[in-house]
Amino acid sequence: MTDNHFISETSIRVRYAETDAMGVAHHSSYLIWFEVGRSDYIRQRGSSYANFEEAGYHLVVSHLDARFLLSAVYDELIIVRTWVEELKSRQLVFGYIVIRPAIGETLCTGHTYHICTDQRGRVTAIPKWIRPLLGG
Amino acid sequence: MTDNHFISETSIRVRYAETDAMGVAHHSSYLIWFEVGRSDYIRQRGSSYANFEEAGYHLVVSHLDARFLLSAVYDELIIVRTWVEELKSRQLVFGYIVIRPAIGETLCTGHTYHICTDQRGRVTAIPKWIRPLLGG
Amino acid sequence: MTDNHFISETSIRVRYAETDAMGVAHHSSYLIWFEVGRSDYIRQRGSSYANFEEAGYHLVVSHLDARFLLSAVYDELIIVRTWVEELKSRQLVFGYIVIRPAIGETLCTGHTYHICTDQRGRVTAIPKWIRPLLGG
Amino acid sequence: MTDNHFISETSIRVRYAETDAMGVAHHSSYLIWFEVGRSDYIRQRGSSYANFEEAGYHLVVSHLDARFLLSAVYDELIIVRTWVEELKSRQLVFGYIVIRPAIGETLCTGHTYHICTDQRGRVTAIPKWIRPLLGG
Repeated sequence: MTDNHFISETSIRVRYAETDAMGVAHHSSYLIWFEVGRSDYIRQRGSSYANFEEAGYHLVVSHLDARFLLSAVYDELIIVRTWVEELKSRQLVFGYIVIRPAIGETLCTGHTYHICTDQRGRVTAIPKWIRPLLGG
Repeated sequence: MTDNHFISETSIRVRYAETDAMGVAHHSSYLIWFEVGRSDYIRQRGSSYANFEEAGYHLVVSHLDARFLLSAVYDELIIVRTWVEELKSRQLVFGYIVIRPAIGETLCTGHTYHICTDQRGRVTAIPKWIRPLLGG
Repeated sequence: MTDNHFISETSIRVRYAETDAMGVAHHSSYLIWFEVGRSDYIRQRGSSYANFEEAGYHLVVSHLDARFLLSAVYDELIIVRTWVEELKSRQLVFGYIVIRPAIGETLCTGHTYHICTDQRGRVTAIPKWIRPLLGG
Repeated sequence: MTDNHFISETSIRVRYAETDAMGVAHHSSYLIWFEVGRSDYIRQRGSSYANFEEAGYHLVVSHLDARFLLSAVYDELIIVRTWVEELKSRQLVFGYIVIRPAIGETLCTGHTYHICTDQRGRVTAIPKWIRPLLGG
């Protein structure tokens, strides 16, 4: 983890459209929830990823992994905890854990690795003004 | 509208995954938000659609319409207002309006028509015990 | 229908991710399939909606309706038939029917209404060069 | 890889709904395409995952990883190559590569790890009758 040790918490209620024929949330839903978690992380740090994009930058996902332990079901309230696992000059790694808060069970863990691109779509260093929000 | 005139309000933050290459929320996202709205309507009335399904029933969508007026963008907070527009013995109609609360703009309006099916997938009357929740 | 009476046919295999906890394709999936159908309609007419967007135009969905008759299940091959129902100077209506080809059953029917916007996002007349593709 | 070295190829046209505000396919779309790829792998081997589920079994995703190299855009035709990377008594690993066939560029690579569950949702050995389809 980076210096700041900040962990955001985001509550999400499982949508019917996120379930599949197995009767539980489809595994791709967790990737969407990770994304909701990191949007919320940046918001809770006082900025917005929308501002970051308005400035011409994107945090492109270059790699991801996820481990699934238990299934989430329709209508239950889950929590995504999000933190910055690593911040380099050109790469950023977010870590996630999705839990069932009632009894503290872990449903899923994962990471997304990001590179930063500029207005022309070229890989660039993560801008200095956003680094403090990310614990740098 | 039915007798009870109850209108639920549900706040939803637009997800990045819900946007498309036009830079705004994809039109199919509103159908998902309608569904989130009617889940929340039933919850705010003191029950849960999950309970309804556990009892062996489903409210199947038989028809829907939606009108799109303005676009929602990533990260903005929108509100879905949901009400029961009509309740018959075998059919139920939900009405929806999606608004941008800051300035009261209407983004989308729509309806979903539902029939009720039982454990064997046959069309059946809407059970009496759930009718009061729906204003009947 | 417009003069040309052209109807495109698009085969789609139902994806697992498109199903929900009822064990069948979620109703929002049909809206995505309508969109796949109209992309294919334009392609089968010799152009591409991607070209249309590269020229700075968008066909924005302003209204839609859908009627659901039977459910599609995971892995089955369905067909979307798409045609231009109406072409005005500023509005375009596509019609759709989703069928189960083996026995000719109709699963869903619907329409999407579109307005045309230009590079600045303003409503504009549908460009003359694309009208012949749409039967005008 | 397992003995059979079979690699399936599945063509997929990128849907508009699969793009996001960056103008390219959202990273979660690749996970859906992996799933389409493995459905097709089993079909090309002469069976169907639907049959497998009808027999009461599920191949639950327990872990996944994906690496993103280049972006897919709306309407382009991409190919998913799928193979069985590893087959143990209780675990199965699929490997994937998503390519842009015109010039052979790799867009994405990844793996999904699966465990097998039975009618009661308990982890079980992968049934013998399906193993030959998976190269075992």
